[in-house]
Amino acid sequence: MSNITQHIYADNAATTPLNSKAYEAMLPYLMVDYGNASQPYAFARNPKKALKEARAEIAECIGALPEEIFFTSGGTESNNWVIQGAIKQDKPIVTSAIEHHSVLEPCALTDNVVFLPVDKEGVVQSKQLENILGDNKYGITSVMFANNEIGTIEPIDELTSIAHQHNWLFHTDAVQAIGHVPIDVHEIDVDMLSASAHKFNGPKGIGFLYIKKGTQWPSLLLGGSQESNHRAGTENVASIVGMAIALQENVKSLDNNTKHISHLEDLLLISLKDSGIRFRRNGCQKHIPGNISISFPKNDGEAILHRLDLMGISVSTGSACDSTRNQISHVLKAIGLEETYAKGTIRITLSHHNTEQEVQTIVSALKKIMGERL
Amino acid sequence: MSNITQHIYADNAATTPLNSKAYEAMLPYLMVDYGNASQPYAFARNPKKALKEARAEIAECIGALPEEIFFTSGGTESNNWVIQGAIKQDKPIVTSAIEHHSVLEPCALTDNVVFLPVDKEGVVQSKQLENILGDNKYGITSVMFANNEIGTIEPIDELTSIAHQHNWLFHTDAVQAIGHVPIDVHEIDVDMLSASAHKFNGPKGIGFLYIKKGTQWPSLLLGGSQESNHRAGTENVASIVGMAIALQENVKSLDNNTKHISHLEDLLLISLKDSGIRFRRNGCQKHIPGNISISFPKNDGEAILHRLDLMGISVSTGSACDSTRNQISHVLKAIGLEETYAKGTIRITLSHHNTEQEVQTIVSALKKIMGERL
Repeated sequence: MSNITQHIYADNAATTPLNSKAYEAMLPYLMVDYGNASQPYAFARNPKKALKEARAEIAECIGALPEEIFFTSGGTESNNWVIQGAIKQDKPIVTSAIEHHSVLEPCALTDNVVFLPVDKEGVVQSKQLENILGDNKYGITSVMFANNEIGTIEPIDELTSIAHQHNWLFHTDAVQAIGHVPIDVHEIDVDMLSASAHKFNGPKGIGFLYIKKGTQWPSLLLGGSQESNHRAGTENVASIVGMAIALQENVKSLDNNTKHISHLEDLLLISLKDSGIRFRRNGCQKHIPGNISISFPKNDGEAILHRLDLMGISVSTGSACDSTRNQISHVLKAIGLEETYAKGTIRITLSHHNTEQEVQTIVSALKKIMGERL
Repeated sequence: MSNITQHIYADNAATTPLNSKAYEAMLPYLMVDYGNASQPYAFARNPKKALKEARAEIAECIGALPEEIFFTSGGTESNNWVIQGAIKQDKPIVTSAIEHHSVLEPCALTDNVVFLPVDKEGVVQSKQLENILGDNKYGITSVMFANNEIGTIEPIDELTSIAHQHNWLFHTDAVQAIGHVPIDVHEIDVDMLSASAHKFNGPKGIGFLYIKKGTQWPSLLLGGSQESNHRAGTENVASIVGMAIALQENVKSLDNNTKHISHLEDLLLISLKDSGIRFRRNGCQKHIPGNISISFPKNDGEAILHRLDLMGISVSTGSACDSTRNQISHVLKAIGLEETYAKGTIRITLSHHNTEQEVQTIVSALKKIMGERL
């Protein structure tokens, strides 16, 4: 961060800082207990035990059983596992128009897919799912728990209920939601759920797929008996341990974090409104705390991002997972946002690490940028 | 390692200790420079730069171009990427009977595959490849650089030459070889090559696939523009940096390490022979230094492993990547090893960290075990 005296990180939907307890917990499995966890000797005992504990801890955080948690290399692998698995089995897929690319791109490999539209707030309409499933053979519905670009939380329990009435399986990409809102897999009654550690203050390159006990699903990565024969590859114990601690810590602090972040969010929106700048906020009332997609008409989101960057503030434009595609995102198109707003969109995503002072600085910076552009 | 006063790690084909320089290099990207490397702001500059440097360093180690290196979650993903990619394209596959399961299991998804047999030393016969390719449309040959169980190094340059004469692509699973023997992708003329960091003193959960410039190959993990649109998923910068340093360090010390390990290997075999114990060593003259598969007739490899374990010595039986399958390995079957030898097989894999004293201790332990069993 050369040449920048202060740094305000407000792009927490893209990635999050690693929790320090998670970091500390990882280190022994990098340097000392490096044994291959699948080996039968004493030197593998510590990594094996750590793996077992991490699986149980993660399961507990989402109301699952340990044997329902399968470690992967991240959200992208988890989502690909589900969608490519459906294709392998010739199962029809119903998904939404605003899913992450790691769901949408594998869906492009098949014709056997229907995309549910969303309303202006990005909410998938349950009624539409009802109509579609009526005529189809048993397949899988995949709808994200919360959208990464605008934070909208989808009505997963309604959707799962409809899917199950028609004997369809239900998967949710919960990458943006896990650790940020309470999730109990039994309450929402999903059959599969994707998660990525680095979105909840865990390390990058690790995630998991929850698969409900009894659900048969073909593997994506083949060639070893790890993860009960469901996901091959030498276990990345250090990162798995870090993921478990990070999730535990986030879940433990969820209420306090939510209060803090929601307060910052209100402060940001009120201050911005008070400043007289024209903007609209995208998404709906029920959203991931701190996920603030705002559109400034007749502006250029990328230019705003770069101006903020020069002031030491990191935010995102479009989808932060993939900022190199230089176009109006599929999500903003799907909610029918007018082009003048869509082009002037930035995404500020706050975390429990942000402060009131930082939020005021962000607002002042936006005022300055908008003032210059008037 | 509770209750064990000494520990001798001799299972380096299963996994290796993390290089301390690699470890140190990883830490900043875990806690400080955690920014998403694909983001366009200043805070992503350090991780982005680290990624670029790591790619160049790895490329240099194997004589490739940086743009030919694609980061994956490990050897299993790299191998699956190749084999599942061939299946997606309906390309015929020719592989060997002694490949790793991460090649063999995806091959089981298609009928369009031929398995090359090996001789008693585990060497794939180039002549047989010649016969098979003659009648087939263009496909891909996948033969491992070196076998994980018996260390045999395959005649890759001969095999690639035949494959290319028939306009077939050539992939090699070099997971056991990279960092342990010199590899230059242009010299051996492969089109694709798989590697896994934790086999060369890098971290677990990271690897790469080399894809020769100009080779079109479908992606396995879809949904993001990372890795030049070839492999989606937020970049695991810390582990990638660790992998690059580990490979550099191993390549730099290759000559010295090889001398040291080969000396220890000779010492072990001579001492064992001098002890009067009946055994045979599997594999061939041209092998990965320190990979010592030895069979004791009328013995039980698993029992030997556990006895050694009680003495603080970690070795492997069968394939160390997957010790939970309790049967004579496909490799020992393929080389036609008599059952009485196959059942009594252990694999000792030495590294540059092992000492003469440790080797003597291993031999003494084996003498003790065999003496008890006589």
